[in-house]
Amino acid sequence: MPKISKRAQNMPASPVRKLVPYAIQAKQKGIKVYHLNIGQPDIETPQTALDAVKNNHLKIYEYALSEGNLEYREALQDYYHRLGFTDLTTKDFIVTNGGSEALNFAISTLCDDGDEVIIPEPYYANYNGFAHTFNVNVVAVPSSIDTGFALPPMEEFEKKITEKTRAIIICNPGNPTGYLYTREELEKLAQIALKHDIVIISDEVYREYVYDGKHQISMLEFNELKDHCIIIDSESKRYSMCGARIGFMITRSKKIHDAAMLFAQARLSPVLLGQIAAAAAHQNDTEYILKVREEYTKRRNLLVDLLNGIPGVICPKPKGAFYCGVELPIDDSDKFAQWLLESYSHNGETIMVAPMSGFYSNPELGKKQVRIAYVLKEDDLRRSAELLQDALKKYKEEFNL
Amino acid sequence: MPKISKRAQNMPASPVRKLVPYAIQAKQKGIKVYHLNIGQPDIETPQTALDAVKNNHLKIYEYALSEGNLEYREALQDYYHRLGFTDLTTKDFIVTNGGSEALNFAISTLCDDGDEVIIPEPYYANYNGFAHTFNVNVVAVPSSIDTGFALPPMEEFEKKITEKTRAIIICNPGNPTGYLYTREELEKLAQIALKHDIVIISDEVYREYVYDGKHQISMLEFNELKDHCIIIDSESKRYSMCGARIGFMITRSKKIHDAAMLFAQARLSPVLLGQIAAAAAHQNDTEYILKVREEYTKRRNLLVDLLNGIPGVICPKPKGAFYCGVELPIDDSDKFAQWLLESYSHNGETIMVAPMSGFYSNPELGKKQVRIAYVLKEDDLRRSAELLQDALKKYKEEFNL
Repeated sequence: MPKISKRAQNMPASPVRKLVPYAIQAKQKGIKVYHLNIGQPDIETPQTALDAVKNNHLKIYEYALSEGNLEYREALQDYYHRLGFTDLTTKDFIVTNGGSEALNFAISTLCDDGDEVIIPEPYYANYNGFAHTFNVNVVAVPSSIDTGFALPPMEEFEKKITEKTRAIIICNPGNPTGYLYTREELEKLAQIALKHDIVIISDEVYREYVYDGKHQISMLEFNELKDHCIIIDSESKRYSMCGARIGFMITRSKKIHDAAMLFAQARLSPVLLGQIAAAAAHQNDTEYILKVREEYTKRRNLLVDLLNGIPGVICPKPKGAFYCGVELPIDDSDKFAQWLLESYSHNGETIMVAPMSGFYSNPELGKKQVRIAYVLKEDDLRRSAELLQDALKKYKEEFNL
Repeated sequence: MPKISKRAQNMPASPVRKLVPYAIQAKQKGIKVYHLNIGQPDIETPQTALDAVKNNHLKIYEYALSEGNLEYREALQDYYHRLGFTDLTTKDFIVTNGGSEALNFAISTLCDDGDEVIIPEPYYANYNGFAHTFNVNVVAVPSSIDTGFALPPMEEFEKKITEKTRAIIICNPGNPTGYLYTREELEKLAQIALKHDIVIISDEVYREYVYDGKHQISMLEFNELKDHCIIIDSESKRYSMCGARIGFMITRSKKIHDAAMLFAQARLSPVLLGQIAAAAAHQNDTEYILKVREEYTKRRNLLVDLLNGIPGVICPKPKGAFYCGVELPIDDSDKFAQWLLESYSHNGETIMVAPMSGFYSNPELGKKQVRIAYVLKEDDLRRSAELLQDALKKYKEEFNL
């Protein structure tokens, strides 16, 4: 048998995807599965985007430019100008196959084997996957559910910096915790990046979905980081079009841009149709975003209350994105999540959650935690909470917890 | 300034993409550019595919399954059953963002840093890019334009095998040479792979476009390679839908499949809309493929005759795909290709070609060669050949060749 690379052997399984085969089996048994496990909203994609695709007059689906077609990058430029970043031009964007590819480009552009990236944990699990793809080590800065996932002082990031550190990756607002960085924290991060000549990779794909009248502060506000910043953005969450696979990276650094373009050119082209959909959505999205934000606010408020009402469950209130990091009275969230799909159902229904072991550098830290995405309608969330409460009871009985 | 990775510093520029900025500048000056540089056919995408996208009733562009949605993998299974590979099931396919991503998955699944892949040269230049992305070394087995790019005896491949060899990559029919492997050659390759316990990565994206009544033989015919074979396939060339970004890998090896799935899951999902387009195209494509094959045959015959009619130009007749590897009476094909866009035009028109230096492990070997894709209408090919002849004359004068 031929060898599998060490790279692949060490590759962590995606905690939001590894359970999919069990969900498919459950569905084949006729069980309805409420998907709380993945950031796939049931919110409709903007009609403008759907119409642009349905009404396209293309006769040939041609390659796009490697950096993305000009029409779409112009739409992005306009969007960022409206956000206040009027110095950005179409040349600062590289369009990618989802935010995933933008993260891959960022890491491969900055990091060699054995290099390190610093990430506050719990973190979006696939950061770990993308780092492993390039044999890059993740160094975690811990936050705890006990303090509502509040970050430690930014100085804790600095203490982790070694000769091998190439970047700090933040997600703002954060997946899976909903954490929203303060201006002071971002300023401190900018200072650290400049002092140590490393890059801040700021994943801002949930920018629009921040609640309670608060606003996200983009890393782009720090002009002094011109050469030390990569923004990761995506249309997937903004417009509920995860399957369109349209993301992008932004950098004001010509050096980083030109290096990342080598990877972009090797894979020739990002997706054409998704660019058409997203460009159309950007034309007129104010009402859509407001409506969706309001919907997520209602869902968050409902879900957090329901979860905290279940005995033994702890759910800090997230400030942004659409996930909760939740502690459950269980022994092992991986086992529990699989059990929910394989062995549990109530009136022909069950739930799917993302075990959070994969969201920590040390899986033990997430052993009692799951990520729950509030991407379903309120009625579905209500039923999901009922199912969770019932399942926890039966799970405890079955395993004598 | 923060460091760029050695990985990025060593990354070769894509020879088919690096000239794009010059082409954009030429167009901005009002010059018409005939694109002979890239495999972007002017052939229309099948109407069935266009209609499926225009008539879709989706309200949400949801994530697809990481391995591709079942409906599309069923269409692929049917297609491969019609090709005679009736043992393949939907579980043997992993759908990817273009053949590019399939190649990335194959290399990252098999190779660690410093490992080697053997590739006959000239080769599709981005093989080199994907290998560099993972610090994998390309070991070339040379073929020469003097013998019409005929491959050396398969034993030459075996001589290149070291402890670090993980795979042999072939492209059949070949880009850029149109080379078509014989059954004997493939049998010998299969023996070598088994003997040395390495994998054959067989890129078969041009399978349908083979001429003169000949047929491509797939590496899948060799059942003994069950654990030692990855097929790279794509809809881009088959259906002239390069911008849909739908490719896939096939392997009968559960071990390789499961390892590759870790990378597929980390990036969550391939493109949704492209799967819908491609699944529709597969339903009824016999007439389309026959018509397109006939069109390419005419174009090839015309172009090869025209090129060989230009003094000093050598163009062996390709057996498949839609490229010619062409030798020109010039000093440097990179310089010439850029000059065509920057400094040359005739009646407001010029041509764009792909310099072949990047298609060889030693760029010197391709210094007089360009790749010309016969993806344009016959009239456009006629005009392109006129322009090439005129340009060669003026280039020789300008540089005293």
